[in-house]
Amino acid sequence: MKRAVLTVFTFGFSLTFASMATAQTADSLPSWNAGASKQAITQFVKDVSTAGGSKFVPPAERIAVFDNDGTLWAEQPMYFQLAFALDRVKALASQHPEWKDKEPFASLLKGDLKGALAGGEPAIFQIVMATHAGLTTEEFEQIVRDWIATAKHPKTGRPYTEMVYQPMLELLTLLRTNGFKTFIVSGGGIDFMRVFSERVYGIPPEQVIGSSGKLKFELRDGKPVLVKLPEIDFIDDKAGKPIGIQQHIGRRPIAAFGNSDGDLEMLQYTTAGSGARFALIIHHTDADREWAYDRQSPIGRLDKALDEAQAKGWTVVDMKQDWKLIYPLEKR
Amino acid sequence: MKRAVLTVFTFGFSLTFASMATAQTADSLPSWNAGASKQAITQFVKDVSTAGGSKFVPPAERIAVFDNDGTLWAEQPMYFQLAFALDRVKALASQHPEWKDKEPFASLLKGDLKGALAGGEPAIFQIVMATHAGLTTEEFEQIVRDWIATAKHPKTGRPYTEMVYQPMLELLTLLRTNGFKTFIVSGGGIDFMRVFSERVYGIPPEQVIGSSGKLKFELRDGKPVLVKLPEIDFIDDKAGKPIGIQQHIGRRPIAAFGNSDGDLEMLQYTTAGSGARFALIIHHTDADREWAYDRQSPIGRLDKALDEAQAKGWTVVDMKQDWKLIYPLEKR
Repeated sequence: MKRAVLTVFTFGFSLTFASMATAQTADSLPSWNAGASKQAITQFVKDVSTAGGSKFVPPAERIAVFDNDGTLWAEQPMYFQLAFALDRVKALASQHPEWKDKEPFASLLKGDLKGALAGGEPAIFQIVMATHAGLTTEEFEQIVRDWIATAKHPKTGRPYTEMVYQPMLELLTLLRTNGFKTFIVSGGGIDFMRVFSERVYGIPPEQVIGSSGKLKFELRDGKPVLVKLPEIDFIDDKAGKPIGIQQHIGRRPIAAFGNSDGDLEMLQYTTAGSGARFALIIHHTDADREWAYDRQSPIGRLDKALDEAQAKGWTVVDMKQDWKLIYPLEKR
Repeated sequence: MKRAVLTVFTFGFSLTFASMATAQTADSLPSWNAGASKQAITQFVKDVSTAGGSKFVPPAERIAVFDNDGTLWAEQPMYFQLAFALDRVKALASQHPEWKDKEPFASLLKGDLKGALAGGEPAIFQIVMATHAGLTTEEFEQIVRDWIATAKHPKTGRPYTEMVYQPMLELLTLLRTNGFKTFIVSGGGIDFMRVFSERVYGIPPEQVIGSSGKLKFELRDGKPVLVKLPEIDFIDDKAGKPIGIQQHIGRRPIAAFGNSDGDLEMLQYTTAGSGARFALIIHHTDADREWAYDRQSPIGRLDKALDEAQAKGWTVVDMKQDWKLIYPLEKR
């Protein structure tokens, strides 16, 4: 097991170097089955990076944006960050005796997840804020770091960072090898994702865009720190995604990758620019190796965006058909 | 003149390549006079980039942040973006007959700048919002692009982008040549600076942090665009600077460069991290070649930060003594 974990942890980097040497001569997407999706990706990358070609795009403008939950790693049976927040509620319960009588905490502490989440987004918001706020950004980072190193997924029993998608890691590397700058643009918490994005995806913290709470600058023991406040600053979902892209990147991406209706505006915004554009949606169709869900799923609902993808000819990845592997550990 | 303009426009890039070849053999800071400031900079860069040294910092953590107004380009007799906004008021006046009777616009249109700005920051806010809001981000970018290509500074008669500081361009290049990622962290408008930051400073839009208004995603003629709203989203000044750094970069910089009290919290935050740290303040002491101002200046006031720099041993650049040249065109 130890060796396997190390493989994942160093994956983003070792693959980068390996691919640099072999990009032109070998298959850069070995975990993708031959087919329309793989063909569309490789053709687009070739088009925009061929100097003198009619679809050439200067490297500085090769911006690619990726949703995270359900696009780069799994999101079932609940968003992984929610699992983190639930574990925090348990860890903090003894400091909050009032939670025993207060929803959504009371249900949670009784193990009734469904009851706790019956309040919908406001309940999730309360849980996240109660467990994140008051910490400095550095304290929060350490707590996430400890959690992600030890927590296990309820179905697979694996660390969450081993539930990233091997084909997408290869795609990230292919893009970077061809001069792209890769960004995460996710509804997840910006500071949560940054803890593992560089190690797992090769995406540095400054290229992670996500939802965020407000921060306060203050001196603690004479040292300047940033403290997380229990107040939402920005929700990086739906129409918020193009806005997050503008605020952080300042130019329209040329390629966007998502899996749900929350990504629709990002895909629309990306493809509406001039010149070569690429939009891809991952359709979760593999109930055996991963999960199968789309139009009716409360998590990662894919309905309007699936219709629009079909109408506009965006690439739709059929996970079951298109992916030879799902997770990196299957390579063993 | 044409040749000179071209020199400035291509400057950031040509210098990058030149320096890559010569960084180890020649003086990378030719416009800096020998002295404590130059020595402190070169020693810090050498310390953090010497593998195996006690002060070595991995390249990914070599984050350097720069204020813009008064640090990378001049800011007198008024912030250059305010000059832009004033020109916009004039250009838009015929569409706003009500401005003739409404402050601060009425004074402005009569040429009474002092009267217009008597209202302080709220007046500046009104001017900026009235002239920026309602535009798509792409329309705004084009207007700034046209303005910056033609507008002239009232004292020097030069384009504003020629009033960048040659010694700071060399410093930016020296840092990047040694593996640093350079960011702007300025109270100026984020979308205003992005129009010229890559061309003039070699800093791409995604590495520009600034003040911003709220945006709205909408379809115009069926095309998804982002529209600027007349509402402040974020003020990237004073305690806002460390917050902007966290939201955009997600890690504490190891080097920070500023010139006014608005930069103090950024310098405090940067230097409070562990390991090698560097803070530098530019003191405007050159009334002949540039301007001389500090504790009493309404623009770029340098008072508390100057005291703290002296108390903490930060590098204070004496512009008159330390800089051989001010602007790139003096190289002719």
